[in-house]
Order: sequence, then C-alpha cells, then structure tokens
Amino acid sequence: MQAEPVDAKALHGGALTRTLARFVAHTQWRDVPVAVRNEAKRSLVNYFAVALAGAHDSTLDRAVAVYGRFRADESTTLAGRSERTDMLNAAALNAMSANVYDFDDTHIPTIIHPTAAIAAALFALAESHPMSGKALLLAFVLGVDVACRIGNAVSPEHYQRGWHITSTCGVFGAAAAVAKARGLDEDAIVWALGNASVQTGGLVETLGTMSKSISVGNAARNGLLAALLAEDGFSGPDAPLEGDRGFLRVSASHPKWNALTEGLGREWELLKNTYKPYPCGVVLNPVIDACLDVRRGARWSLNDIEQIELKGHPLLRERTDRPGVRTGRESQVSAQHAVAVVLARGKAGLDEFSDAAVADPSLRMLARRLRFIDDLSWPVESAQVTIVLRSGERIAHRVHAARGSLAAPLANGELADKLHQLAAYGRSGVDTHALIERLWNFETEHDAAAVMRLARARTTS
Amino acid sequence: MQAEPVDAKALHGGALTRTLARFVAHTQWRDVPVAVRNEAKRSLVNYFAVALAGAHDSTLDRAVAVYGRFRADESTTLAGRSERTDMLNAAALNAMSANVYDFDDTHIPTIIHPTAAIAAALFALAESHPMSGKALLLAFVLGVDVACRIGNAVSPEHYQRGWHITSTCGVFGAAAAVAKARGLDEDAIVWALGNASVQTGGLVETLGTMSKSISVGNAARNGLLAALLAEDGFSGPDAPLEGDRGFLRVSASHPKWNALTEGLGREWELLKNTYKPYPCGVVLNPVIDACLDVRRGARWSLNDIEQIELKGHPLLRERTDRPGVRTGRESQVSAQHAVAVVLARGKAGLDEFSDAAVADPSLRMLARRLRFIDDLSWPVESAQVTIVLRSGERIAHRVHAARGSLAAPLANGELADKLHQLAAYGRSGVDTHALIERLWNFETEHDAAAVMRLARARTTS
Repeated sequence: MQAEPVDAKALHGGALTRTLARFVAHTQWRDVPVAVRNEAKRSLVNYFAVALAGAHDSTLDRAVAVYGRFRADESTTLAGRSERTDMLNAAALNAMSANVYDFDDTHIPTIIHPTAAIAAALFALAESHPMSGKALLLAFVLGVDVACRIGNAVSPEHYQRGWHITSTCGVFGAAAAVAKARGLDEDAIVWALGNASVQTGGLVETLGTMSKSISVGNAARNGLLAALLAEDGFSGPDAPLEGDRGFLRVSASHPKWNALTEGLGREWELLKNTYKPYPCGVVLNPVIDACLDVRRGARWSLNDIEQIELKGHPLLRERTDRPGVRTGRESQVSAQHAVAVVLARGKAGLDEFSDAAVADPSLRMLARRLRFIDDLSWPVESAQVTIVLRSGERIAHRVHAARGSLAAPLANGELADKLHQLAAYGRSGVDTHALIERLWNFETEHDAAAVMRLARARTTS
Repeated sequence: MQAEPVDAKALHGGALTRTLARFVAHTQWRDVPVAVRNEAKRSLVNYFAVALAGAHDSTLDRAVAVYGRFRADESTTLAGRSERTDMLNAAALNAMSANVYDFDDTHIPTIIHPTAAIAAALFALAESHPMSGKALLLAFVLGVDVACRIGNAVSPEHYQRGWHITSTCGVFGAAAAVAKARGLDEDAIVWALGNASVQTGGLVETLGTMSKSISVGNAARNGLLAALLAEDGFSGPDAPLEGDRGFLRVSASHPKWNALTEGLGREWELLKNTYKPYPCGVVLNPVIDACLDVRRGARWSLNDIEQIELKGHPLLRERTDRPGVRTGRESQVSAQHAVAVVLARGKAGLDEFSDAAVADPSLRMLARRLRFIDDLSWPVESAQVTIVLRSGERIAHRVHAARGSLAAPLANGELADKLHQLAAYGRSGVDTHALIERLWNFETEHDAAAVMRLARARTTS
C-alpha cells in the first residue's frame, strides 16, 4: 500500500485517517511478515509476565474494588486474579496490571508502551466474541502500527510537553485493533478512530502515582468502546487525526504527517518494540547494566564510596533526577534510587523498586552521593557509572546498548524467564509453562481466549 | 479566602490545586450568595429542558444501546427515557442528552457548557447516595467554579487550538462537585482532581458528529469516577493542574495561574453563565435575533433576496462559515443555514435545526446568498444582518446584545417556557409544571433525587 501525497486538501478531507483505516480493513495475516508475527508473540509473552506481576499491586486492589461496583457481568477474566468482571472493566483493569510496574514493553521511537492497552482490549473482546489466535495477532499487529504511527507523528513534542503518550495514542491502537477483530469496514474504522480521538487523556505529571493507571486503563477500555460504538453506527468526523482541530494538531505544533502512512505495510512499528529487563523507566536500563558491571568482582564495600558519577545525555538527567523518592512507584524513575539499590544488592527486580526498598536508610545515604554529568554528544541509549572511592580510586563502566534495547534484545528464553519470575512474584498460581507453550504457538489456537483463562489466578488470594 | 501568591515554588508544590481543594472542602451553603444560589437553580431548569429534549436523539438511542450492554444495575434514572441504568452510565448518558443539541448553557469567558457534565454526575450520585437539594446545589456551584476557573486559566488558546473545553474542563468540575457531595477532605479532593486530570479528552474537530457526545458524557462519568476512586484512596500527584507537566501547561502555552484562585469565594463563575434561546452555537444568537428583526413586518418575499450580508467579528466567520451542511447537528454551527432558515420560517427552534430542515432545497438556495463581512472592531456579542433585495433596497438590523446574553439574560419565565417546550419536543410525558415548581424551590428538597425521578419518561416510547 502506497502512502498518499500529503497536501492541504488531503488533510482537510481526511485522506490520512482513511488510508490508515483502509490499511487496517484490508490487511490479512498473509501480509504480515514472519518477523512481525514473532514479535507479536514476544510482546504477548511479555504482556502476561507484567500483567501477572501487577495484578495484586495496591493500585489494582483499589481499582478492582471501585470498578467492580459497576460491573455488568462476569464474562471476562482478570489476569492473575480470581475475580471476573465485564468486558470493558476487564480491558481497563488488565491494562493497568500490565503497566503498573512500568515493566512493560517500549516502542523505541516514541516511548509508547503499546501492548498493555491493545492486548487488554483484544483479550477482553475475545472472551465474549470468539476469535482465533491468528485473528487476535493480526488485530494486535495493526493496532500497534496505528498507535505507534500516530505517536511518531506527534513525537517528540507530545511527550516532552507532558502528554502520557502510552495513554493518548494507546486508545487509537486499541480502537483500531478491536475494529479489525470485529471486521469493521473502512468507514466504521474511521468512526472508531474518531470515537477514540475524544478520549485521549493522560499526563506525564501523574507518573509514579495511582492516577496514571486510570489513563492506561482508559486507553484499553475506551478504545474498545470506541470500536463497539462505531460498529453500532456511532459516527465521527472525517479527519479526526489530521483535521484542523484534530488530534495531531492539538497535541503537537508540527505534526509529521508522513509518519502516519509512509511505508504502511512495508515498515512495521512492532519491529521497534523492546522488552524491559528491569522494572524502571527505560532510560535507566543502561544505568542499571553499568552498575551491575561496576559491582562485578568488586573489592570495595559500599562504605568506601565517596561519590557516584552518572554520565549521559541530558535527557537521562531530565527524566530521572529524582532524589528523596517516597514510594516504590516513584523509585522506578529515580536514578538516585536505581544506582543505590543496584550497587548495594546487585540485582534490579521488583523487590528492589518497592516501598520497602525505598524505606531502607542505607540506600538513601548512598543515593545522596550521586551526581549527574551531562554530555549532549552521547546517545540516549548509553550511560556511564563511575564510583569514586575514598582512596581516590575511580571505577567506571560505560554501557553502549543496554540489555533489552533494540541492539541487544532479550532472547525468547529471557522473556520466558521474565514470565516465570513475575508470575511467581504475583503469587497467582498460574501454570506459566503451559501459558508460555501456548503463546509461542498462538497462531494455531482456535480460541484466543483460552490463554486468558489459563492466566486466571489459581489461588484465591 | 485569599488567593495565594503564585511563584515557581508554589507551582511545583501544588499550592494552586491545594487552594482550590481547600475552597471546595470548606465552603458551606451560607457562604454562597443569594444571586449564585438563584443562578444554580436557573442552570438546573435549563439542564432539565435540554436533557428532556435530547433524550431521544438518535445519538442517545445508539449510546443507550451500547452502554446498556455494560450496565451493572438499574439504580439510576435517564432523564426523558424509560430505561434505567447504573450510576456511571447514567452520568454519561444524561450529560450527552443535555448537550446533544448544543442548546445548553454557556459560561461566557470560556464558552464552556458547564451544567451538562456537573449536574449529570451529581444527580446520578444522588440516586444512590441520598443528599438534600441544598447539598446538591452547593456541590454544583463549586464544581462550576472549579471547571470554569480552570477554563479561564487556559483560555483562549485551549479552545482555539482545538480542545473541546466543555469536555476537557468539565471532568474537573464533575470531580470537584462529586468530591464535595461525598464530603471528601482536602487531600482526597486533590486526588480527585488528579484522577480527573488524566481523563481530559475532547476535540473541536468532532463538533457536529456523534463522537463529540462521547467526551461530554465522559466528563460527567469520569469526573464522578475520579472522585469515587479518590474516596477509596486512589491517589494522584500534588500538582495535577500547575505541575511542570500538569494539565494547564500541556494544554495551553501561557496559563493564567491567577485565574485558578484569584477572588475565590468572592467572584463566582456561575454568575457568568448564560442560557441559549436557540439550539445553536452561541455566536449565532445575535445573528438569529437580527434575522428575526429583519423579518418582522417584512414586505418582501424570499424570492426578492439578491444577497445576504452578515457582518461581525472575524470569530463569527471562523466559527460558523459552514456552507452545504448535511445534518441537523452540523446546521447548529452554520451561519448559512441559520440565516436561511430563520429568514424563511421566522423561528429558530429544534425543528429548524433538524435533518429535515437541512434537506429543504429552498433553504439551501437561500443559504448560498450569504456572504461574511469581517470587522475586527466589533465585539463578538454583536452581529448585523443585511438583506439586499433585487430592487436594490437594503434592510439591515444590528444586534448589540443577543437574547440570552449576560446583558439580556433569559427571565425565569422564559427558562420555564424553554423547559415546557423542549420537554414537549422530547415527548417524554414528564409533568414539567411539577418539575419546575420543585426546581425553583430546590434548596428545600430533602431528597435531591426526587426531581430526577420526576424527569423519567412517563411514556414507554
């Protein structure tokens, strides 16, 4: 499919939204390259890992209680929990679970975490509207393409300004994915995107607080609702994306129009997706790797450390310079906490970014010794940690491509390990071996919802 | 209550959000001036008028059908309809009804339509959580103040850019109102505003389409949910409004910080609220008045008209230059249609802005004769219509303050007439005399929800 020329008339008439809608309507499984199919399955393995870990966070306990007062039925599974709820609530709550620890996937060009909203919407749908694994994978791939292309078009200004891009663009992805899974035609997909375009809330200001989970949940729930409304004839504008007062212009000063449709069907956004080895903001990954390297075979003790230097692109400092954090959630975006806890404990799992870890006074003392050194010439993907000992000795390690980056992706086995470990952390009693086995062969499933039922908590905690 | 000084430290620390929250938490009925109390009741009369009219629009039929699949219970009334639904759905659907014809109220400085979202959220709450009329009125007044102050702080850029300010700011008003009605303390009100801050979708691009109703409904539903979540301990950031990446900065380049808190408790935003005599974009009101005046005692017929000139501030043209509209909804923001239909029929009710009226070929012909004349020196409140006859004769009328403007507000009797007429249009069989009687004495009601039950459809249409 060719990108259409972008001129003022095309923008006004909605040619870009229509081109995207046509792509979603007409793309078939056979059009999806093998590498993209595989990445879809890797994204789903990672999705279940993070959803099973987050399912019993206190944020989820509270959300399940309040949302549960408004559940229409018990048709739909909550990953890692024993309660059931209705389709819309399940979409919201499962997306929250998958994102609450900031341990989910990252589309590198935009920093969108695409899978939480889109997979949660699709699996919720699948429990009431049976579909094959293949159909769900196809819808997922297309939903990610739509969300991330919209994200590309408004980046980097959109996130820098303060819009939580995972939420604001995720709702379009969920809408497109559900529209595909429901077999909507081109017109109805345009409506679904229009119905999504009025539900794009989410603020960076709320990172590290429970509020953030609301907008991630809404991206799934409202994207699903947007498509169901469109299916029932609830219509929207012709150009919800590119119109004069459409989403792109209101949320970015200079949208990159071409990003919406250029290379459609040839370049797949899912191939730019990555999976985190650590439950932190993605820019902290090379910092953690560097700390692990510095610590390896150390002949010094923590008390010997006079100062810690963290060198990187200024963006690293801007995103992570958070001393004195008070909660586990805040610690996930704090370089001070990450450096201290990894140097002290030699690992970086969920326990290291918990309320308990944050309360550890020895870590707080260590954290105070960190100082940032900006270097605009460094790529964002790299970071260097140097510890300066009281003896004057300096021990430095620089990381050029962190584990889990596009240059050093997690292997399938590492993703499977992540699922085992996070499911154990969530204590849900899920048979992760069976779950992983079926996910790696997901395109052969007759009933996509079967894996969701496998992800239900076996304990009654 | 004094506005606190606005400096960088205060912004970062959340002093503005906290000042607003404290105001909401501590203001009592005795603190609300009589004029404000009366305006609250006038707003509610207008609310029931528009909700009863819109309840059976096809947008509502579709929304009720889809949302109805996800209703937890039947605790809550839908104004003008016979179905019942749960609290969250009712908040959404009643707000949609009240706004679907663009016939609701307008806060002049921001063009926010404040009552739809806030009243819908409060009445939905009242059916499950009994409160007095006085308690509802107090919560309503405070919710309007919060929504409109936030609107003042981001205007005019916010709407001009394309954010549908009724939706984006309405969610804060609904959250604050419900928080007050539930008796939340200062901290929890800050959380409620934080939980609202991630749910601020809504685009001007969708005006005239069904999509717009989704975000107006969401403002009510999600504001209500934001407060219920906060009540259950779902916490948010300290500075959701004024933080570096809070709502004000992401949605306006130069927020007017002082607008949030200056004159709090002395200047009431509700006193800047107005009620439409015609179901159109508010800038069309003086145009319609001028057409009615031009037509009064006319000795010409439509065939004599060579050209129609519409003179006004350029904003009038920018907002309403919409030739060739295709639906009743679009016609509500089309000067071409408004001028044609009013000159032809001498009235401007819902029938004049319907799909049927738009399809009338004689009106389309007349509409093509309109041309705009911009005059930057004219206030937005005024407009002049001139018809140029084939004979060369020119008949002009200029309106300085339209009926329903702050300078020429609708009288209580006119608001009551509006309610009678619109209820009749909606064919819901509601006893509007009883309803109006109780609304004018609403501060004496023991059970606020009683008037909502009166507004239920008596027919089974």
